Amino acid sequence: MNQLYSSKLLENVVGEFSKLPGIGRKTALRMALHLLKQDEESVCRFSRAVMQLRSEVMYCAKCHNLSDTEVCEICSNPRRDHSTVCVVETVRDVMSIENTMQYQGVYHVLGGVISPMDGVGPVDLNIESLERKIAAGTVSEIILALSATMEGDTTNFYIYRKVRHLSVIVSTLARGLAVGDELEYADQVTLGRSIVNRMPFESTMKQLKIEN
Amino acid sequence: MNQLYSSKLLENVVGEFSKLPGIGRKTALRMALHLLKQDEESVCRFSRAVMQLRSEVMYCAKCHNLSDTEVCEICSNPRRDHSTVCVVETVRDVMSIENTMQYQGVYHVLGGVISPMDGVGPVDLNIESLERKIAAGTVSEIILALSATMEGDTTNFYIYRKVRHLSVIVSTLARGLAVGDELEYADQVTLGRSIVNRMPFESTMKQLKIEN
Repeated sequence: MNQLYSSKLLENVVGEFSKLPGIGRKTALRMALHLLKQDEESVCRFSRAVMQLRSEVMYCAKCHNLSDTEVCEICSNPRRDHSTVCVVETVRDVMSIENTMQYQGVYHVLGGVISPMDGVGPVDLNIESLERKIAAGTVSEIILALSATMEGDTTNFYIYRKVRHLSVIVSTLARGLAVGDELEYADQVTLGRSIVNRMPFESTMKQLKIEN
Repeated sequence: MNQLYSSKLLENVVGEFSKLPGIGRKTALRMALHLLKQDEESVCRFSRAVMQLRSEVMYCAKCHNLSDTEVCEICSNPRRDHSTVCVVETVRDVMSIENTMQYQGVYHVLGGVISPMDGVGPVDLNIESLERKIAAGTVSEIILALSATMEGDTTNFYIYRKVRHLSVIVSTLARGLAVGDELEYADQVTLGRSIVNRMPFESTMKQLKIEN
């Protein structure tokens, strides 16, 4: 049933909020009433921040990451390793990997994965610019860090075929048991892969900083 | 751990969204990235709607409900029964009762309930204007429709004491088993009250429109 609002202005805001992902009309109403209780200055700040984001944010000319400047902070940082390029699906993946603080190279955001079901083909992704970047010869390794799904694997394979004639190392993220996983609950495929790709115990010890 | 954002503009929006009730930084980021994918026109509409709500919405001069005009649609509707006033906590309660389509009177929004724990006293609520309304003599019944909590009961009692010398009927919402409730799971107090306040079966039949 449709809710009855005493105010058209309120109804508008509820309508707008409920267009956001994961927000229903009840939550939207709660948000709108919350904003009504704030002082005008902070609502203004909210409204302006949203508008500014949409009109001023750019995509980095080099890696297609979100940026406030033409070339993003990562790409313009001379202390990063520009010969290693981590290929990811979205800007959110860049944030995830940055948060690990384990990676010093640069990124390349594809903008998605090849998915015929969703009508996404290679031309819809930033694959050509990746090829050009590699063909220029300054990249020594690309790390394919896409989702471990059918679509991710397809895209990995597509990129691999495009660049294998160039002199570049192509690697992918390690597959195996997640840290904290119990063997009993691990799925077969992951467990199988983690046996095939087993690694010397010394390297684990080194990563955990255990003295031999 | 703090998320690293490649864009200050994005960080701003995530910060603003995560101030909303029930929204964490992950959901806020999801919303911000969603808005980035929309065309500029619709983001503008979103931003404007929020701003407009805060700056233009009013509280009805008669019932303190949210309104686009000085007197709200309900209070200015001549077909409603202006001699019956339903006293509620918030504007959301007005919507809930309106949605039942069982009520033809008008409302009075208190803006909360008396709660010493939260530092809310009678002066912080719209109780004086309710008294004045009743003292004017046009109101024949007030329905106390507050929450069935300690604070709600306190507020009910406070209002009752304030108006009992005036010639007005004071009623409250019926307490009893919720429609659809199983007896087994009903709490003792509710069940006890519903026995004490039992009602003639004929009235139930009438409400369910069953022929005798």
